Amino acid sequence: MPNFSIMPREPKFFDLFEKSVANVAKAAKELADFLEDYTNVPLKVARITELEHEGDAITHQIMEQLHRTFITPLDREDIALLTERLDDVMDFIEDAANAMLLYRIEQPTTRAREMAAILVTMTSELVVAVPLLRNRSKMKEILEHCVEINRLENEADAIIRHALAELFDDTPIADVIKWREIYEHLETAADKGEDVANVLEGVVLKHG
Amino acid sequence: MPNFSIMPREPKFFDLFEKSVANVAKAAKELADFLEDYTNVPLKVARITELEHEGDAITHQIMEQLHRTFITPLDREDIALLTERLDDVMDFIEDAANAMLLYRIEQPTTRAREMAAILVTMTSELVVAVPLLRNRSKMKEILEHCVEINRLENEADAIIRHALAELFDDTPIADVIKWREIYEHLETAADKGEDVANVLEGVVLKHG
Amino acid sequence: MPNFSIMPREPKFFDLFEKSVANVAKAAKELADFLEDYTNVPLKVARITELEHEGDAITHQIMEQLHRTFITPLDREDIALLTERLDDVMDFIEDAANAMLLYRIEQPTTRAREMAAILVTMTSELVVAVPLLRNRSKMKEILEHCVEINRLENEADAIIRHALAELFDDTPIADVIKWREIYEHLETAADKGEDVANVLEGVVLKHG
Repeated sequence: MPNFSIMPREPKFFDLFEKSVANVAKAAKELADFLEDYTNVPLKVARITELEHEGDAITHQIMEQLHRTFITPLDREDIALLTERLDDVMDFIEDAANAMLLYRIEQPTTRAREMAAILVTMTSELVVAVPLLRNRSKMKEILEHCVEINRLENEADAIIRHALAELFDDTPIADVIKWREIYEHLETAADKGEDVANVLEGVVLKHG
Repeated sequence: MPNFSIMPREPKFFDLFEKSVANVAKAAKELADFLEDYTNVPLKVARITELEHEGDAITHQIMEQLHRTFITPLDREDIALLTERLDDVMDFIEDAANAMLLYRIEQPTTRAREMAAILVTMTSELVVAVPLLRNRSKMKEILEHCVEINRLENEADAIIRHALAELFDDTPIADVIKWREIYEHLETAADKGEDVANVLEGVVLKHG
Repeated sequence: MPNFSIMPREPKFFDLFEKSVANVAKAAKELADFLEDYTNVPLKVARITELEHEGDAITHQIMEQLHRTFITPLDREDIALLTERLDDVMDFIEDAANAMLLYRIEQPTTRAREMAAILVTMTSELVVAVPLLRNRSKMKEILEHCVEINRLENEADAIIRHALAELFDDTPIADVIKWREIYEHLETAADKGEDVANVLEGVVLKHG
């Protein structure tokens, strides 16, 4: 049979989602490695910025396809939200790394390393959960990953609360200000990861 | 006539809204009492955190019902927004209380007490306004409460602006940083209360 | 032919958008002039606050008309988003000016002046782009302005990152805190300007 069709090819939303989530997971991993081995700071931060630019390109591709596509495999607003929240996770990972460079942080804190580890686990969950969107019979499995991501976000919340309280104990005040900003970026990255899970949960409940 | 039906029971969105808003109002009251009588801090903060967890459960119930319900008594997006913004008010009340505990604040400021009083009045307005959604003929009365809530938010805004400016006059710099965060939480709680009023106003204009 | 019609008059959404964007552009210009000639601070800040109130009135007018109108010239959600994001740009311009007054800033920084200049250029682009919504055959031209606005937002981002890093070099710590807040307002104003461009881009891709 000849390979032609009157219908335009179905846009590859799922392929692009998976590309986006893989990219975010890679950035989380780079951040964790960077905080573990805190050397060559400008180079490692530049690598994360590079991933952030790639993420922007994927995001732009999805949004453009969304605007041009009449019939979409998920509700339009869910596609937009999923895309934007994934992009947010990436942005805040990059903001955290960049702040460490700009503020000439000499040594990462244990709390920052803990947060990076949480972001690695959270994005690994998303890497497994997102492809399950392709298959209605497996969609329900997404919910287990959402539960785990919610648990991780609560853990992140507790880490940050204690990190902030500890800061005032023995840190020079200029460093208090710098670290508060870095912690805020890390916390927001985890919040946005939970937002992704909430969008996924909504999709499953609608279609499941 | 026997009490049966082929149709599933209409989900009790309005019951859940009222439960949510009552819970938020209770938290605002606990916060105001706590700042008035600043003793047993860990216990009182734990009580507010407890209310925040109850709020999460209600929010989750509404969102789940929303995803499972085909015909809803208000537009889906309005139900979701109303629920999320109420949940936000609660979250920021809890954040403010929790920051006071974590930062070992020794004495609340007058400005913090003023803000808690505004949150009490604002949420009392919401407790009256939200049940009016049930009845199309009374819906218009909601608008008066929205006007009052907008006024309260402007008042909150002025309090916070002055609170922040005053901070620099005679506060040790570490306390400046701590109080800025607490004030920010209180201000955002009031902002989110206004967001709730804006959603209500939109609903009235659409249906009124 | 007599001047009557059974149809209600089409609400003037485009007129109101143009009024809103002109108002925001005027505020950006006032801010830049104010930072250039930093005298009569209370008077000049009051003038920007005045513009912000006018902006609120326009925003309210659009939202009310949106709720009352059945058939709208653009998607309802795009009208709401465009309106709210323009209002946000205005709010953060006013927040920046107001913080300078409240914190008794004695002299603006070069970075603050650079940010105001970016906001002037960005809002001038919007003043040209928004009227192109009226005409489907010219809509595509909006995209060029969006590209330019995105470029300006990246520039703003770089300015702020460097401004924040510089702050720690030689600024008394209380001023570090004050300026961080002012810079954050300016940065958010630019972010919201980019959000406006993103909404416009989405509209063009849908209708173009």
